[in-house]
Amino acid sequence: MGVVHAILHLTPGAPGWPAELDDIDDPPEELWIAGRAELLGRRPRVAVVGTRSPTPYGELQAARVATCLAAHGVVVVSGLARGVDELAHRAALEGGGATLAVLGSGVDRPWPEGELAQRMLREGCLVSEFRPGQGPRRHHFPWRNRLIAGLSDLVVVVEAAYSSGSLITARWAVDQGRDVFAIPGRVDHPMSRGCHRLIREGAELLESPGELLVALGLEPAPAASEAAPADPLLAALRGETCTADELAARLALPTPEVLARLVELELAGHVVRGPGGLYRLRRAPG
Amino acid sequence: MGVVHAILHLTPGAPGWPAELDDIDDPPEELWIAGRAELLGRRPRVAVVGTRSPTPYGELQAARVATCLAAHGVVVVSGLARGVDELAHRAALEGGGATLAVLGSGVDRPWPEGELAQRMLREGCLVSEFRPGQGPRRHHFPWRNRLIAGLSDLVVVVEAAYSSGSLITARWAVDQGRDVFAIPGRVDHPMSRGCHRLIREGAELLESPGELLVALGLEPAPAASEAAPADPLLAALRGETCTADELAARLALPTPEVLARLVELELAGHVVRGPGGLYRLRRAPG
Repeated sequence: MGVVHAILHLTPGAPGWPAELDDIDDPPEELWIAGRAELLGRRPRVAVVGTRSPTPYGELQAARVATCLAAHGVVVVSGLARGVDELAHRAALEGGGATLAVLGSGVDRPWPEGELAQRMLREGCLVSEFRPGQGPRRHHFPWRNRLIAGLSDLVVVVEAAYSSGSLITARWAVDQGRDVFAIPGRVDHPMSRGCHRLIREGAELLESPGELLVALGLEPAPAASEAAPADPLLAALRGETCTADELAARLALPTPEVLARLVELELAGHVVRGPGGLYRLRRAPG
Repeated sequence: MGVVHAILHLTPGAPGWPAELDDIDDPPEELWIAGRAELLGRRPRVAVVGTRSPTPYGELQAARVATCLAAHGVVVVSGLARGVDELAHRAALEGGGATLAVLGSGVDRPWPEGELAQRMLREGCLVSEFRPGQGPRRHHFPWRNRLIAGLSDLVVVVEAAYSSGSLITARWAVDQGRDVFAIPGRVDHPMSRGCHRLIREGAELLESPGELLVALGLEPAPAASEAAPADPLLAALRGETCTADELAARLALPTPEVLARLVELELAGHVVRGPGGLYRLRRAPG
């Protein structure tokens, strides 16, 4: 490990202390920071975590999410571990973005040692509640996971086994009132089982990193529908609320045909079915 | 098309009429049945539907689900279309199981024509609300989808584009009070987007066909946990309800270590965290 030039020590309430940690259960009593300490004051922050053994699909998703976040000024938080954590930090750094690693050891003894830890000291930021000189211990890692969640506005789980450290981070996040997103994958791959479990337990299914930007308020929600295409059914519904039977009569079409078309239009986001089978146009956004 | 030897005509209330269709909106006024009409009386039934253009992953999942269902005596319902529908029918037939196709044309004019339709006449069952002689029409297909759902206890969507006929079947199923299951997949494949949409809208995420057997009551729910391994924390919780602090004091361990271990045990299904941070053992099933 190279020389750590400066270690910043913070206690609750001190200038630079991340106030969002005061809201969590079991907040840390102190924090040590090495590297670009100013990143600890930058928001929003999103945790990107996952297995130490991702599939190529998981690798791609970790890089995709972190690259998008970093490009939009979001600080990428993770745990410096091999696999998804490492890929998330690297993708953020490659894009010139901000990234922060929460350690299970002192900031002068980051684990795993190596080139990424050194680079994080120069271009990113290392944070720990464990004192300088403290080596990594097995039980430190699930415990520091509450700070990965606590320092983040949202948590994204990329790939995770059914019972894994990433799910511990997600559990802390839920306890702390943070939204959790999980990326689904093939049902026949064990590394997607943790994400599927999270989705079943209420996590948001994440398809595209842009959805995180929307959740953070950095981008507007996508329009519910493109401009409605010319369609006699849509024209007949303008300013109206009708049953399928009424529309069928008005358009001189069989009710089954009208109903089938209405379901298609509902799926495409153009019409809404209300109580009593009354259909209306979906209001254009804005 | 070969000769259809016998067509059965049913009206509501007649012997053999599937009574579950009386509960749906817009029930059919009559049904024509060709092939093994007795299959219409067999339960449970599960619809397996999806895109006409599955990926190899979708093909595998369609076959996997239908094979498992057929092997457990479940009637596989689908729409005879190419792709997922066809694979589901074929997998059921290969396993010597029961399968039923709901058509968008008369049962003497199944669409698409060909070997599968012929085989379904011999070994499966064709059902339609359209009169014999009626050719397929575009709007028949989304409309007959309500019968695919209405004749089924559950609906499984294997792969589907974001706006597709399979989602129409799922929408009918929800309206009819049937549970919908959707199989997730890679977020970078368009054919998984429909399933992900359904999961976001409340469909069950399906990982394994065995989950369908549980939902149908054909198999018991899996045990929540294996026998609890020897663990001092679990031993200390036997017959107790404790906070992490109390356990830490009792075991002379640091609270962070105890909390981290408790979260692991919670994820593994051995302990439950209740209100006030009180932990207890999860009751063994049975």
